[in-house]
Amino acid sequence: MYFPGMPAPLARVVEMLASLPGIGPKTAMRLGLNLLARSAEDSLALAQALQTLHEQVGFCEQCGCFAEQEHCQFCNHIKRDHALICVVEQPVDVLMMERGHSFRGVYHVLHGRLSPIDGIGADTLRLPALDQRVSGGVKELILATSATVDGEATAHFLARRYQTADVMISRISRGVPEGGELEYLDEHTLSRALDQRVAWERVQP
Amino acid sequence: MYFPGMPAPLARVVEMLASLPGIGPKTAMRLGLNLLARSAEDSLALAQALQTLHEQVGFCEQCGCFAEQEHCQFCNHIKRDHALICVVEQPVDVLMMERGHSFRGVYHVLHGRLSPIDGIGADTLRLPALDQRVSGGVKELILATSATVDGEATAHFLARRYQTADVMISRISRGVPEGGELEYLDEHTLSRALDQRVAWERVQP
Repeated sequence: MYFPGMPAPLARVVEMLASLPGIGPKTAMRLGLNLLARSAEDSLALAQALQTLHEQVGFCEQCGCFAEQEHCQFCNHIKRDHALICVVEQPVDVLMMERGHSFRGVYHVLHGRLSPIDGIGADTLRLPALDQRVSGGVKELILATSATVDGEATAHFLARRYQTADVMISRISRGVPEGGELEYLDEHTLSRALDQRVAWERVQP
Repeated sequence: MYFPGMPAPLARVVEMLASLPGIGPKTAMRLGLNLLARSAEDSLALAQALQTLHEQVGFCEQCGCFAEQEHCQFCNHIKRDHALICVVEQPVDVLMMERGHSFRGVYHVLHGRLSPIDGIGADTLRLPALDQRVSGGVKELILATSATVDGEATAHFLARRYQTADVMISRISRGVPEGGELEYLDEHTLSRALDQRVAWERVQP
């Protein structure tokens, strides 16, 4: 969106904001104007935070999670079960899993998933590090790739890759999400929820 | 939104992005992750642009538009009609007006509008500069404040303020917006469009 008479420094900020996902030119314009209307300190603080973002945030050498040091807080944590590895696609998936506050194992981030259609093969995934961890003695590998065609293909690939290894392999459950009303769920989710129904535990009388 | 295990530098960026209008915590998270996934240069470029934003963009001393120098490009423009002043509420309104490519006069930005309910009075508006311009010989003052209660009140206030001055005062027209379908317009707009109907110019046979 071109605005005649817009100052170049504002146009630069707006253009860069508009390159972010989900930010259209109108939203970028509103954000740029808001930053200009606020104090200079606010813009500088955001500038500062952006400058240190890549400098300070890297990936754990072992598991591939976000890490500010060589290893992430999960791999460094002595109270976590290091023989229980949850395999996810992206670093952000780890943050999502941790929101549940229930998993006490560690992670392995693949940094991608197989996508035969897009020509993305196994060589792009962080597999050598996972091979090493599995052969180093792991009890269970939880495949927590997404419930999409590509995520499912990746899970199948991993299950086959480690089928001869001395490790239990599991897949996160699928079915009706918490709070999900049947009315708004698709037929595939409902079919699977029926197929994979779990026996109700009877309370002893 | 709190994510356990999120690196602090990322959390800082996300928090600041979430303070922008229309950016909720989930969107801020997506933007932060996107910036992290992109090259460090992208973040630095945005940081740089934000740093210079307030340094380089100020307001025109005469009209109050955005300006990178003492005066804006409109006040400096010799081909514009400096006796025709369009009064708007905010600097961004000037950018919107300029998109039409049809106005050849200059602007005056009030940097606000009267809002008796919020206790915003005439002393907060850029009026002394406008008084000076009007008394310095202006042909027409186009009141282009918004078509809201406050914008209308501000237009009334200005019309009264300059009623004895030697200047023609006009108000931008109101009615059905271009492309507007009657089905989706409110009754106030339609009433006004009927009241202020314009005679159709007959083509001479």
